[in-house]
Amino acid sequence: MVWLSNDAGDDLREVLHDGVDWVQLRTAGVEQWVARGALDRDRQWTAARGIYAHTVAEHALALLLAGLKLLPEYARARSWDAEGKEKGRLVRDATVVVVGAGGIGRELIRYLGPLGAHIVAVTRSGHEVEGAHEHLPAGRLGEVLPRANVLVLAAPATPETRHLVGAPELAALPADALLINIARGSLVDTEALVACLRRGGILCAALDVTDPEPLPDDHPLWSEPRAMITPHAANPAAAQLPRLCALVEANLRRFASGEQLQGRVDLDAGY
Amino acid sequence: MVWLSNDAGDDLREVLHDGVDWVQLRTAGVEQWVARGALDRDRQWTAARGIYAHTVAEHALALLLAGLKLLPEYARARSWDAEGKEKGRLVRDATVVVVGAGGIGRELIRYLGPLGAHIVAVTRSGHEVEGAHEHLPAGRLGEVLPRANVLVLAAPATPETRHLVGAPELAALPADALLINIARGSLVDTEALVACLRRGGILCAALDVTDPEPLPDDHPLWSEPRAMITPHAANPAAAQLPRLCALVEANLRRFASGEQLQGRVDLDAGY
Repeated sequence: MVWLSNDAGDDLREVLHDGVDWVQLRTAGVEQWVARGALDRDRQWTAARGIYAHTVAEHALALLLAGLKLLPEYARARSWDAEGKEKGRLVRDATVVVVGAGGIGRELIRYLGPLGAHIVAVTRSGHEVEGAHEHLPAGRLGEVLPRANVLVLAAPATPETRHLVGAPELAALPADALLINIARGSLVDTEALVACLRRGGILCAALDVTDPEPLPDDHPLWSEPRAMITPHAANPAAAQLPRLCALVEANLRRFASGEQLQGRVDLDAGY
Repeated sequence: MVWLSNDAGDDLREVLHDGVDWVQLRTAGVEQWVARGALDRDRQWTAARGIYAHTVAEHALALLLAGLKLLPEYARARSWDAEGKEKGRLVRDATVVVVGAGGIGRELIRYLGPLGAHIVAVTRSGHEVEGAHEHLPAGRLGEVLPRANVLVLAAPATPETRHLVGAPELAALPADALLINIARGSLVDTEALVACLRRGGILCAALDVTDPEPLPDDHPLWSEPRAMITPHAANPAAAQLPRLCALVEANLRRFASGEQLQGRVDLDAGY
C-alpha cells in the first residue's frame, strides 16, 4: 500500500487490514507515525528515504553559503554600504560539522568536497563517512562545537535527537557560527536559539524547519536579523512526486521478487 | 614593483622609471589601467589573476543557489506562507551558462559538478573547458540563451564584453532565468536589466558588481524584489592580502630566475 497522506491516526488505521503486508510512506522522516504508534509489527513500513536527499542537500548548501556570505543581510539592505561588508567568509576556511550521515548528510558532504571545507561527520556510532575528515559519535558532539563554524543538522527526529541543540550546545559554539537545520524543528530548542541569537551568541541560524511549525507570524524569529527561515521548502512538492513514483516502482519490483525494500523503517530505532 | 593602490594616473606615473621592469597590480581585472593608458610596453605588468578565483567562485555559487531557492524573498518574508513557496528549483534540473572560463569560471564549474547541473561554457574561442558539457564561442552566446536557466557572467571587462547582456539578450532568456554577475558591472546594460526585471522578464538578478558602482541609494535596483545585490563583496579584503602576498613571493622567484610571470597582462587583448 502507498500512503500519500500525512495522517498517522484513524484514516490510516481504517484502511489497514491483514492483507496489507507493506506500507510505503511518502516522507523521509516518519516521526509522526512513530509518535502515534501507527507503525505496527504486522507488516513492513518503508519511508521515502534517500530519494529526496540531493534535493534537501542542495537546499542545505544554499543556506550554508548564504549564511557565510551574509546574503540575508544583503537581501534586506537598501544601500551599497551594507553593514558587515568585509565579513563574508570562505567555505574553505570553515569547519563544517554535519550531524547525521543519512542520504542528505552524505550528499551535502559530497557537494562540500570541491569547496574545501574541513568536514566533521557526527553519527550515532561515529562510523567513517566518505568525504569527511573527522568522525565522531553523537555522544561526543560537544567536543567539536567550540570549533564548528557551521553546524548542520541532518539527523532524523527521534526522542534521542530532541533538543540536540539546546542552550549548552549553543553556548559552546563560536560567535561566528552558523546553525543550519534542514532536518526537523524538534532537534533545536527554539527558545534557547532565540535567546542565543538575541545576545549575538552565534552569527546566524538558517532554518528550513522550526518548532513549532508553521512558525506563527508573531514569533520572535521573524524579526530576528540573524535568522533566516525557509518554510519547509527544501523539498518542493514538484520535485517530490516523480522521485516517489520511481521509488514505489523499484520497491514493488523488490517486493515481488522478495528482495529487501529500500527505506525500510527500523521500528526499534524509530526511523 | 608592487602597486597596491587602485590609482592608474598621476600617482602611478610619478613612481615609474626606467629601472622598473615589472609591476604587479593588486586586482584581477585591470580595466581601469587599460582605460587610462597606464600599461605601457616599457615593462611587464601582472594582474593578481587566479588567486582570488575560488573566493569569487564561492560567492557566485552562493548567489546561484540563493536565486534558485528564492532565498532573497524568504530573507525578506515575515510570515511562514511566503509567496513562491513551491517554486524553489534544483541545480540538477538547470542549464547553467558560464560566460568566461578564467579562474573563476573554471572553479565555479568544478563546484557545480557534483550538483549535477548541465553546464555550457562560453569563451572567446569556444575552446573545451573541463567539466562543461557544451562549449560555445562568445559570438554564439545568443543560441544558448533561450534554454539558460542560469546565466553567470565571469568574463573580464573589455570593450568587447561591454553590455554583453543588454535588452536583446535579456529578452532571449526564459522567464525563470537567473542572471548572476560577479565579473564587472559594465558587462550588463543596467537600464535594460531594470526594465526586464520590472516586467518579470527574468526571475532574478543577483549582482555583486553594478554599473554604476557603488549603486546610488535611489537606484531602482534597490527596491526591485527580483534583484539581490552584494556590494562588490565577493572578494573580501581579509581574504585578499595573504593570497596576494603568496603570489608576489612566487612571481619574485620567477622574475629572479627569468621564468614567465603568473598573471601577465596581454596588452593587445587588454586583460
